[in-house]
Amino acid sequence: MREKQSHADSIILGIHNLIIVVKGVIIMKLSKLVGVRFKEKPAYCVIDSHTFSLRGGYVKRVSNGIFSLYTPMKRVTQNIEKILREEMDAVDCQEVMFPVVLPGSLWEESGRYESVGEELLRFKDRNDTPMVLGMTHEEAAVHLAREYGSTYANYPFAFYQIQTKYRDEARPRAGLIRVREFTMKDAYSFHTSQEDLENYYDKMARAYDRIFERAGIPDVISVKSDSGMIGGSVSHEYMLLTDAGEDSIVLCDDCGYSANMEAADTTVDNSGCTPAGELKKVHTPGCKTIEEVCDFLHSKVEESCKAVVYQINATDEFVVVFIRGDYEVNETKLVNYLHEDVHPGEITEESGLVAGYCGPYEQNAKCRIIYDKSLEGIENLCCGGNETDYHYTGLNIKRDIGDVEYVDVSKIRDGDICPCCGKKTIRISRGIEVGNIFQLGTKYSKSMGMTYTDEDGTSKTPIMGCYGIGVGRLAASIMEAKHDDKGPIWPITVAPWKVHVCCMRRDDDACREAADKIYEELTNMGIDVLYDDRDVRAGVMFADADLLGVPVRVIVGPKALANGEIELCTRDKSVQLSVKKDDIIAETKKLMDTLYEEINSKVKK
Amino acid sequence: MREKQSHADSIILGIHNLIIVVKGVIIMKLSKLVGVRFKEKPAYCVIDSHTFSLRGGYVKRVSNGIFSLYTPMKRVTQNIEKILREEMDAVDCQEVMFPVVLPGSLWEESGRYESVGEELLRFKDRNDTPMVLGMTHEEAAVHLAREYGSTYANYPFAFYQIQTKYRDEARPRAGLIRVREFTMKDAYSFHTSQEDLENYYDKMARAYDRIFERAGIPDVISVKSDSGMIGGSVSHEYMLLTDAGEDSIVLCDDCGYSANMEAADTTVDNSGCTPAGELKKVHTPGCKTIEEVCDFLHSKVEESCKAVVYQINATDEFVVVFIRGDYEVNETKLVNYLHEDVHPGEITEESGLVAGYCGPYEQNAKCRIIYDKSLEGIENLCCGGNETDYHYTGLNIKRDIGDVEYVDVSKIRDGDICPCCGKKTIRISRGIEVGNIFQLGTKYSKSMGMTYTDEDGTSKTPIMGCYGIGVGRLAASIMEAKHDDKGPIWPITVAPWKVHVCCMRRDDDACREAADKIYEELTNMGIDVLYDDRDVRAGVMFADADLLGVPVRVIVGPKALANGEIELCTRDKSVQLSVKKDDIIAETKKLMDTLYEEINSKVKK
Repeated sequence: MREKQSHADSIILGIHNLIIVVKGVIIMKLSKLVGVRFKEKPAYCVIDSHTFSLRGGYVKRVSNGIFSLYTPMKRVTQNIEKILREEMDAVDCQEVMFPVVLPGSLWEESGRYESVGEELLRFKDRNDTPMVLGMTHEEAAVHLAREYGSTYANYPFAFYQIQTKYRDEARPRAGLIRVREFTMKDAYSFHTSQEDLENYYDKMARAYDRIFERAGIPDVISVKSDSGMIGGSVSHEYMLLTDAGEDSIVLCDDCGYSANMEAADTTVDNSGCTPAGELKKVHTPGCKTIEEVCDFLHSKVEESCKAVVYQINATDEFVVVFIRGDYEVNETKLVNYLHEDVHPGEITEESGLVAGYCGPYEQNAKCRIIYDKSLEGIENLCCGGNETDYHYTGLNIKRDIGDVEYVDVSKIRDGDICPCCGKKTIRISRGIEVGNIFQLGTKYSKSMGMTYTDEDGTSKTPIMGCYGIGVGRLAASIMEAKHDDKGPIWPITVAPWKVHVCCMRRDDDACREAADKIYEELTNMGIDVLYDDRDVRAGVMFADADLLGVPVRVIVGPKALANGEIELCTRDKSVQLSVKKDDIIAETKKLMDTLYEEINSKVKK
Repeated sequence: MREKQSHADSIILGIHNLIIVVKGVIIMKLSKLVGVRFKEKPAYCVIDSHTFSLRGGYVKRVSNGIFSLYTPMKRVTQNIEKILREEMDAVDCQEVMFPVVLPGSLWEESGRYESVGEELLRFKDRNDTPMVLGMTHEEAAVHLAREYGSTYANYPFAFYQIQTKYRDEARPRAGLIRVREFTMKDAYSFHTSQEDLENYYDKMARAYDRIFERAGIPDVISVKSDSGMIGGSVSHEYMLLTDAGEDSIVLCDDCGYSANMEAADTTVDNSGCTPAGELKKVHTPGCKTIEEVCDFLHSKVEESCKAVVYQINATDEFVVVFIRGDYEVNETKLVNYLHEDVHPGEITEESGLVAGYCGPYEQNAKCRIIYDKSLEGIENLCCGGNETDYHYTGLNIKRDIGDVEYVDVSKIRDGDICPCCGKKTIRISRGIEVGNIFQLGTKYSKSMGMTYTDEDGTSKTPIMGCYGIGVGRLAASIMEAKHDDKGPIWPITVAPWKVHVCCMRRDDDACREAADKIYEELTNMGIDVLYDDRDVRAGVMFADADLLGVPVRVIVGPKALANGEIELCTRDKSVQLSVKKDDIIAETKKLMDTLYEEINSKVKK
């Protein structure tokens, strides 16, 4: 048969003998692997995965936030993509492909050509037609599905692509974690009812769990995320908890609650605060910050009210948020409440606001006032006096101002009350967002005029979901989660090669022949093997092996070999065995099986 | 034990196609396949592959020359990509990945930021940095290889990617044949000697032969192509001969010579032409074209000399090509000779040229004059008189003008002399370029300052080759080569599914159960099966099956089934069998084997 021949041929044809293909497996000699590995940590690398991506010859920076991938990283991403494909196919999601370059007119249909900021790269083609680089493909998905989705009988359906995307990030950073160009798996589903969407959304959520479990990071958690200006929709972010992460996640170790900062309601317990007193205006010369005031007046910051001033982007109208002195405003919560984007306010004289001395009592400036929930129940507040160098003490909002609406726009903090179980158990962790799923509702189908004819002949708008995972970011996140100070420790499922054979003495005939034979036998079994066939010192060989992070290592050294033994270990050194020469193949296979089993045992059925 | 199992499966099923892994088999019912098929040929489709791409639900147009791919086309391209990967790996080419978006500065290094025309899409990012969309990746390849390639010991090496490219074509057309955005396999090799490059180039040429053979179009021919302004280099285009092609190819059926139009030398036999006569200026009122003149003077067009006027782009200097009246100028040959780009001349009064009456005798205009080889040996020419309404007859260039240099800038024609065997056997065919290979020399390594330290310590410039195949164009070309009037006939190696099961009567229990069982059994064997489970008329079912072009079809109909029989046929109907119900799985497998064998038998070792 033809396939068999091609393998035989490839061995014969391998004039340079760089790579040999056997049974579809690429085996590779390290002496021929394109890429340079090095020892020094680049000064600009702030997280480990970035450092090791460069030091291990995984990526090369081409421009700010734009990278070329060398073979080891290409192989990791291909292994990830294989898992993604299998799990998407398993939830009846069909693979398609959208273009990278999209006509601006398609984004005008959804309104996003105008509404999305500078991260959407807009340009004109040679005929002056406005085009964009796809940063997400909801519009293209509706465009593809419009005809097929015109009758109820074809619902539900879903498709995905794995394709290049571009987001013109203002501040790309951290290697493959936040880039401008990236490969993404993005899926889109179409439904005739919210119930059907929810069923599929749950199915997809389970597929996502399995993806991260299979990729060797089963500790990724799904957190409820802010549904933003889209309204009533539900969405979840998948977070890998790590100090290197750029996102904050709200967790309750007691009841298992998790959410992102925007989605976590802050509950503040003001019971037991000082009873109501007399409202007084006091001279507080030079005290502009809430800490300075409380210090000066010997009052508690928990019984102070600070003002945070914003302006609405569209109108420049001032918005003053009054909030308990020890809390911060979560701007996303504020924006969601206002349904308006805001920026920090620039207080002018005409505004009527007194910078540093803004308070709610007798506040006469033309502005919108918001009371954060953290103030609710405090009876004896210290706040700004609306006059330079003056504050009030003893403010009781209900008594002195009246009934006001309290809104939650504050950032939840470590030790705060869990919105789920009510205990003071909230913990804030750092994390990397490795995926997200979203109930889109009819946002895109409606704006783009996609409809279907229902069973009863009426025209209806389909309901959509979308589901994303960045492939390169996932690869970097795995590296971030699985490494030591010498390099990555790849989970065997995504590892660029499964076994790394080190020939410790190229000039020793017995050593070289034994290593060659192991390399050949493992390869013939269909295992991806990386073979270090170089004539280099042991230190260089092991440093490179650590940087390449292959999970199983076979070390053929002359001394052990003289005793009929070969060393077998895992990259993380949790297993270190001296194996009889004749058993090395069987033992290597067994160790691989153990590593697979460790991962597979954590995959939910 | 997921990984272990899938791995075992791939070995067991490795007989036909290594990509087949039971776990990875996509189960697809036609009732659920996203995409719409239809009957009417769109009026704007001029070639069959374009028509069937749309009618069969393979692609959807998103913008001019930009398409989304539905699942069937995505699967075809994935099958092609698998062949590409296997053949690249087999010639020691490592898979990497370059970005789609590249910094303009990288293209400035090679000089191409300026030299390439509008097809290079240039834009600025949010920081006003000039960027381009990669239309080819020589610059990125040099950038990636620079450090690794800094020492002779690492040579030779080669890598490839399969990635999206964008070329801002002025006139996208013919569906996936000439698009703006496309997926391409592009490979780059690096060498320390011309000899080593040539060895690798030959190896790559054999890999290309195998790729087209394995993709089911073994009749693709390799033609020597114009080496263009790069100079001494060698390059070949791989051409699929088809009337729908947009390229012309020069063939000699006698000796097997092939070349593209630019590379084929024109040899004109002017022996036996009229002997020298007297040079006379004659009145030829209103005769502007060479046909009008020859007609008016009753002279042979083969003994006429026409003028074709160009201007050099950079300087607007006039270039007048004198050529035998029945030949045409090949502009690429002309440009290569001049080492200057040209455009058709716009004759002004100041030029001194007389439009329609230009001739070589007493030509006093300030211009560059080129004599095409087709004029060599003619002793009695008719030509323009350099005065309105006048021509010369009896011109003998050698006698009347003197010794001139003859240059070959003409288009070779059907029936012309073969430059290889000398017989009048030239045939011009149409073709689609499905791949190209190129000996680049040091064009990019030199301009970008890439060097390596040789064994003797000296600094040298590496020699490069590059090798491209467009994936979508190849898919469309296969469709163009393999179809009938009802749709594509996919070679089994690239077919989106291998077996198409038609259940002719959904409402007939026996029929439905038998079809369900066949579908299940074939799928369990790891075969990609498309199952038409719809309740539609036979006409609709077969029309769709023809459009989807799956090579093996199993038709379960109630009448035959009552006799214990099931129909088995190939898409092209070259095989039509009535098979006993119990034998259908084995017979289907056998028919698949035959189709694989037909393709494999044509693959060169």
